[in-house]
Amino acid sequence: MRLIMSWLPSLITATPEEGFDLAIKMSRVGVKKTQPDDEIRTRLRAVYEKNADSLTAASHVIATNFQTVAAANNYWR
Amino acid sequence: MRLIMSWLPSLITATPEEGFDLAIKMSRVGVKKTQPDDEIRTRLRAVYEKNADSLTAASHVIATNFQTVAAANNYWR
Amino acid sequence: MRLIMSWLPSLITATPEEGFDLAIKMSRVGVKKTQPDDEIRTRLRAVYEKNADSLTAASHVIATNFQTVAAANNYWR
Amino acid sequence: MRLIMSWLPSLITATPEEGFDLAIKMSRVGVKKTQPDDEIRTRLRAVYEKNADSLTAASHVIATNFQTVAAANNYWR
Amino acid sequence: MRLIMSWLPSLITATPEEGFDLAIKMSRVGVKKTQPDDEIRTRLRAVYEKNADSLTAASHVIATNFQTVAAANNYWR
Amino acid sequence: MRLIMSWLPSLITATPEEGFDLAIKMSRVGVKKTQPDDEIRTRLRAVYEKNADSLTAASHVIATNFQTVAAANNYWR
Repeated sequence: MRLIMSWLPSLITATPEEGFDLAIKMSRVGVKKTQPDDEIRTRLRAVYEKNADSLTAASHVIATNFQTVAAANNYWR
Repeated sequence: MRLIMSWLPSLITATPEEGFDLAIKMSRVGVKKTQPDDEIRTRLRAVYEKNADSLTAASHVIATNFQTVAAANNYWR
Repeated sequence: MRLIMSWLPSLITATPEEGFDLAIKMSRVGVKKTQPDDEIRTRLRAVYEKNADSLTAASHVIATNFQTVAAANNYWR
Repeated sequence: MRLIMSWLPSLITATPEEGFDLAIKMSRVGVKKTQPDDEIRTRLRAVYEKNADSLTAASHVIATNFQTVAAANNYWR
Repeated sequence: MRLIMSWLPSLITATPEEGFDLAIKMSRVGVKKTQPDDEIRTRLRAVYEKNADSLTAASHVIATNFQTVAAANNYWR
Repeated sequence: MRLIMSWLPSLITATPEEGFDLAIKMSRVGVKKTQPDDEIRTRLRAVYEKNADSLTAASHVIATNFQTVAAANNYWR
């Protein structure tokens, strides 16, 4: 039951692309755990989505999480 | 006695999700050790929780700590 | 079929330079997944392309992704 | 004599928590080596301690140093 | 022919210092690939070269790329 | 002759503290290679030395370079 409900049951993915999607999810959960209010996050999203530096920062967090996911999957070699 | 009282007795967790929660905790302790005053942190929290870039930065720290926790757990493979 | 359509079928590249190009692509997809609207991204690009700190930040994301790609390729040794 | 005087005789610690404390120390020494004047650092501390983004940045540096300490200790496995 | 023309034929260098120079080159190419216009980059350079935080950020990107180059060279041990 | 003149003949140091000093040196050379003018750097130094966030950023670069130096020395285990 527990594993079914988990948002992060495993770092293993079938492909690099799915791993990248997982890294995006992890980056968003990192935000959500800090600001759990959906409405506030939606409002903030409308702002930072139109700021180039905010988007680069978001991409940096994804890159950091993808390092972890890629290592977990032994780089899908 | 000592280990029971420690906020970080081990980097080992049962699941990736618990590891992610530990990474969040480590990120917050990093802040708390720099600013130990609870009241000030609560006040600051009210501000940065509504700033998109602050939330992205918080997620970046979590991602960095999660790299450590994930490696410690051999990526829960 | 699936692999043909994937934007990231593999982290393996023939040369370091191709690996660097892949890191650039990953960095851009990280932005695109956060802001999927092509028109907005094009408009933002016109701004941050002329800001030195934005370019340095972009280069940092590329460097982070290149770490992953280089490790995946065993550094093309 | 030399090792006794060193602020960083070893990266090995008995527990993860002591390793985290060492990472905090390393982060502060990184600042101190750049700004050796105690009085100026004390004054600056009064400012950044009340800035949420400054605290997040401080936590990021600690997380980076903790990666090193944790690896040195083979993650206290 | 191809390898001769590549700006990044290999991550292997004879010495740590040459590896550091390569990391600088990679950091600059990361910028150049994002802003290919030489004239604009030259203009921006005149600005950020006189900004302390911009220089620190540039040094951070170099440090990140040097991690990759150093690992590729097995730390020139 | 060459090795004697190099500012970075090796990443190997006798102790962790010397490794930390080397990481500081690498961080400064990263700045110097971007802004080679000594006079400008001295002027900039007077500014960022009194800015808390600049000092934290400097400490972050040192932490990143120290990761490399520590790995090169197998963490002085």
